[in-house]
Amino acid sequence: MKLKKPEAGPLLRNIHSPADLKKLKPEQLQEVCDELREYIIDIVSVYGGHFGASLGVVELTVALHYTYNTPEDLVVWDVGHQAYGHKILTGRRDSFHTNRKYKGLSGFPKRSESVYDTFGVGHSSTSISAGLGMAIARDLDLSDKKVVSVIGDGAMTGGMAFEAMNNAGALNSDILVVLNDNNMSIDPNVGALKEYLAEITTSKTFNKMRDEIYDLLGHFKAAGDKMRKAASKLERAVTAAITPGALFQALGFKYYGPVDGHNVDALRRHLEDLRTVSGPKLLHIVTIKGKGFVPAEREQTKWHAQSSPFDKITGKSLAQPTSENKQPSKYQDVFGEALVELAAKNEDIVAITPAMPSGSSLWPMMKTFPDRAFDVGIAEQHAVTFAAGLATQGKKAFAALYSTFLQRAYDQVIHDVAIQKLPVVFCIDRAGLVGADGPTHHGLYDISYLRAVPNMIVSSPMNEQELRDMLFTASEYNNAAWAVRYPRGRSTGMNIRKDFLKTEIGKGRVIREGEKLAILSFGPIGNYVVEVAEILEKEGLEIGHFDMRFAKPLDTAMIDHVLAGYDSIITLEDGTRLGGFGSAVAEYVAGKGAGIPVKIMGVPDTIVEHGTQRELHDEVGIGPDGIISQVRELLGVTAK
Amino acid sequence: MKLKKPEAGPLLRNIHSPADLKKLKPEQLQEVCDELREYIIDIVSVYGGHFGASLGVVELTVALHYTYNTPEDLVVWDVGHQAYGHKILTGRRDSFHTNRKYKGLSGFPKRSESVYDTFGVGHSSTSISAGLGMAIARDLDLSDKKVVSVIGDGAMTGGMAFEAMNNAGALNSDILVVLNDNNMSIDPNVGALKEYLAEITTSKTFNKMRDEIYDLLGHFKAAGDKMRKAASKLERAVTAAITPGALFQALGFKYYGPVDGHNVDALRRHLEDLRTVSGPKLLHIVTIKGKGFVPAEREQTKWHAQSSPFDKITGKSLAQPTSENKQPSKYQDVFGEALVELAAKNEDIVAITPAMPSGSSLWPMMKTFPDRAFDVGIAEQHAVTFAAGLATQGKKAFAALYSTFLQRAYDQVIHDVAIQKLPVVFCIDRAGLVGADGPTHHGLYDISYLRAVPNMIVSSPMNEQELRDMLFTASEYNNAAWAVRYPRGRSTGMNIRKDFLKTEIGKGRVIREGEKLAILSFGPIGNYVVEVAEILEKEGLEIGHFDMRFAKPLDTAMIDHVLAGYDSIITLEDGTRLGGFGSAVAEYVAGKGAGIPVKIMGVPDTIVEHGTQRELHDEVGIGPDGIISQVRELLGVTAK
Repeated sequence: MKLKKPEAGPLLRNIHSPADLKKLKPEQLQEVCDELREYIIDIVSVYGGHFGASLGVVELTVALHYTYNTPEDLVVWDVGHQAYGHKILTGRRDSFHTNRKYKGLSGFPKRSESVYDTFGVGHSSTSISAGLGMAIARDLDLSDKKVVSVIGDGAMTGGMAFEAMNNAGALNSDILVVLNDNNMSIDPNVGALKEYLAEITTSKTFNKMRDEIYDLLGHFKAAGDKMRKAASKLERAVTAAITPGALFQALGFKYYGPVDGHNVDALRRHLEDLRTVSGPKLLHIVTIKGKGFVPAEREQTKWHAQSSPFDKITGKSLAQPTSENKQPSKYQDVFGEALVELAAKNEDIVAITPAMPSGSSLWPMMKTFPDRAFDVGIAEQHAVTFAAGLATQGKKAFAALYSTFLQRAYDQVIHDVAIQKLPVVFCIDRAGLVGADGPTHHGLYDISYLRAVPNMIVSSPMNEQELRDMLFTASEYNNAAWAVRYPRGRSTGMNIRKDFLKTEIGKGRVIREGEKLAILSFGPIGNYVVEVAEILEKEGLEIGHFDMRFAKPLDTAMIDHVLAGYDSIITLEDGTRLGGFGSAVAEYVAGKGAGIPVKIMGVPDTIVEHGTQRELHDEVGIGPDGIISQVRELLGVTAK
Repeated sequence: MKLKKPEAGPLLRNIHSPADLKKLKPEQLQEVCDELREYIIDIVSVYGGHFGASLGVVELTVALHYTYNTPEDLVVWDVGHQAYGHKILTGRRDSFHTNRKYKGLSGFPKRSESVYDTFGVGHSSTSISAGLGMAIARDLDLSDKKVVSVIGDGAMTGGMAFEAMNNAGALNSDILVVLNDNNMSIDPNVGALKEYLAEITTSKTFNKMRDEIYDLLGHFKAAGDKMRKAASKLERAVTAAITPGALFQALGFKYYGPVDGHNVDALRRHLEDLRTVSGPKLLHIVTIKGKGFVPAEREQTKWHAQSSPFDKITGKSLAQPTSENKQPSKYQDVFGEALVELAAKNEDIVAITPAMPSGSSLWPMMKTFPDRAFDVGIAEQHAVTFAAGLATQGKKAFAALYSTFLQRAYDQVIHDVAIQKLPVVFCIDRAGLVGADGPTHHGLYDISYLRAVPNMIVSSPMNEQELRDMLFTASEYNNAAWAVRYPRGRSTGMNIRKDFLKTEIGKGRVIREGEKLAILSFGPIGNYVVEVAEILEKEGLEIGHFDMRFAKPLDTAMIDHVLAGYDSIITLEDGTRLGGFGSAVAEYVAGKGAGIPVKIMGVPDTIVEHGTQRELHDEVGIGPDGIISQVRELLGVTAK
């Protein structure tokens, strides 16, 4: 797709770094904001990418770079999908159309990409911890640079943000936290903090009451000296206590706000004032996700990100009508629908997601059984232990998490689920290379980190039928925890049975027998092997292919069969080569002292950048071409 | 050691379950508390165990079991080392002297041990998540059982407690959180929350102000009707706002307290009242750690746990004077002292601990360089990302964490350190089987979960000299993160060099050459092999022994050497057999198709209970006897 790069507006086109921005007069900033917003819409409407979040912080982004001396002063963006404006203002405007494309700009701040990107992000709730580390380093170096962490109200519910606030409040180092509160968010209300923030920003009564108390105190002060002193004390207590930021003040932060986050002049003035306030402080700004693009303001979840072109006025999709219906379902959706079917039969089934009801396709369950599906907020640790608590009472808990986010709950998987042998089912979405989201979101480690844990079954289906059957089997299995991993993206499109059949635990499937070389695959990446085997067959090479289904327990009988009938083995998985499925096979084969080579194919021990899943599979050599090369190498034959 | 079991007092000796407790009159409860406290002191003074925490919650424990209908009602203890009184009252008094001993009672609540132990614990901050899961299951089952989570002020700083509060406040299920605030704790003040709680409980001014405001509002109400309405509203706002629990109220919890946690009658009455209050609520009680045992009240950190007998009046140690000085240093202390030496030479070195300054021996660093050592509270996630933030500014951050607690920061290790290739040094304490703390504290998974992560060196020294050199080498290495793992307990007692030498990265050491069979060991467990090799030598068996030092990068040249000269390989590590060091060796050997068996010795894929480290090593077969058996089996020889 060759598309014309959008033109930047007259002010924006001359901003190549924040230094250029600073040359403008304060009254020109709104114009910059308008142009920046326009530019983001122009780019994303053509090239896709995250959307609503960046539109919501246009004014903040401009105000921050105008007020602070970046990159000397350090701005840390939480999560980072809101940093498009930041990237455009910091020298990456002309390359911004490569955003999230293979070899292009990252969709998130990234230290190796720019000196303005102070901390790589992607996961939520890290910015205060990272910013505090920077602030303490600054203190030790006796420097006077400023540190600003920008965090959303969703990310603020992540436990580590609280841990960081608690620590920052005590260390008393100079740091500004900007709490970006998407006040008008239409996301379901998943936490008390969100309600609390909404109350602060919307309750007129609350503000009126504050005024009344002040009036009252005024009268008090008019009285004698002793009374005045008491009143003054009282005033301090009341001010501290009934100010809307009591929660943050309790954690040692000075609270400022709420401020309209779309008034760039107000933001600029507040930030300038706050530069002179020392210690930990929080500025609460209220913004609208998708601000300035009406369809996105209205449907914020839908417009969180866009992958195909759309009309930049109406928001209507410009994608070719490839009849979505005819495409195979996503694995996520197969999971989401199977779960509802299972839940209809088994009323003990409950489901948990940490803030990913759409991503993990938990909506069908939430709609059909609203009392049995829980979105617990950005809180992976809590999600898993909450599931464990439910399991102690006989509930069959399905915890749906992306592989990369389950990393956040690893201790809870071990300590609260596995040690207690609680039969929680982990539905591990986005397992393997995920594509455009890149290194922070690839799900490469789950096979290794889960296989190490006792009382844990580690499985992956090769197709949607297998996925359904595994979910069913897991729903009736109560002897241990069970992890089912499946990738981002489309399933095979096969016809599937309506009913469910049991999967035999620890048993693989023979896909094809062959000679000399056998490929043992784990998960949907095995479908590449099907392609490969057909190609090789035409060349006269008959390889064996076994869909192992389980990394744990391992089908050792099947491996014995392979060892008896083949001269070499390739293992294939969409995950790290170290400690995963291939490693399990290697442990077994090496334990036997079998003189048969086991070639572990998987993701190498490096950080893999972003691109489409296929581009990345090919890059790391686990796409069809890579598999063919490996087969030929082991068989000592050359390409025909 | 055969010791007489202590006698329980006249009331306590007739309490075999909470049903017996409930037969008593309220005015007898203080006597029960006194007897229970006496019994705990009697037991721990003879048999050792955690101490201060259980003494602090004697009254709470009695009041809870008196008021609630346990085990039907569910009480969840956070961390759990304060649950001794709970165990004694729930049918385990007569077996309590086996606490923390091999095959004896667990030092923590444990579901498989008693129906009264609703949730297994050991790590901090899980009780609200687990309790909320139970509460929701109760709601789904239309039952009316009550759920109480008991959490300390330290555990409350752990992020997942906040995640759970945020979720509970929104779900509005019926749950009581008892916040056990060790008000008088002499631990260093590490968080804003602690300061906040101290302010609530100590500030007389604060309470006086509250009274004054109430008076004022009284006058207001005496006026006309409209005024009265306004005043009433005002009162609600003021009450909500200036009540000491604003932080918890912001999260949707009703706040009650602070209450004297050593007044059993007050506690009982409060708990009875709270049974009738629906929704999420928090009772803030103030207790003294070590209450009732003067030495423990005075020196709370020292008396957190006791391992040897002491005089139950004076607190003086009754341990045989085995001259502690002559024992080898603990690995922890070798680390702590080496760190100070390195920090003296390199002013960029900083150190971080999440609430384990004593356990991890960070005190020397905190005393010598107070500005460069940070206790961030119970906050492993924050600790690691804070270290990453420091590293971005050129600081050389040493993050000291127990292996089991680093599980809590796994995502931060990947997302904030490894992906960004930041050279944080992870000093992984309590790696391997830890002994009496049992399954929740064993550090068995770190080799596997860290080996899977790119940009991460995974090393373990065989002795204290090697530890010092590795720490030094890591302090000067800036290309990636570096994990050094070492176990709980004593080092070898060898003479060590004062100066530091560089360890060659990815290179092992030949301990002895032999024939036929080689043992490749990783870490101090290799010292068993030294013993074993000497025993076998006397039998005429000359085995090879290689201290591999690095699980990653692996010394493949050394493995090639072994493959060329030996017929079979044993790998040995104090960690799970799945995916760890042995697996790394197996991957390499299987990859070559070498027909030499690799026997992976490590901790099997089951939950290992508590006992001494040696008892557990022997149980799982990685003690000297187990190694000898394995050698003989592989060599096909029988014991002489």
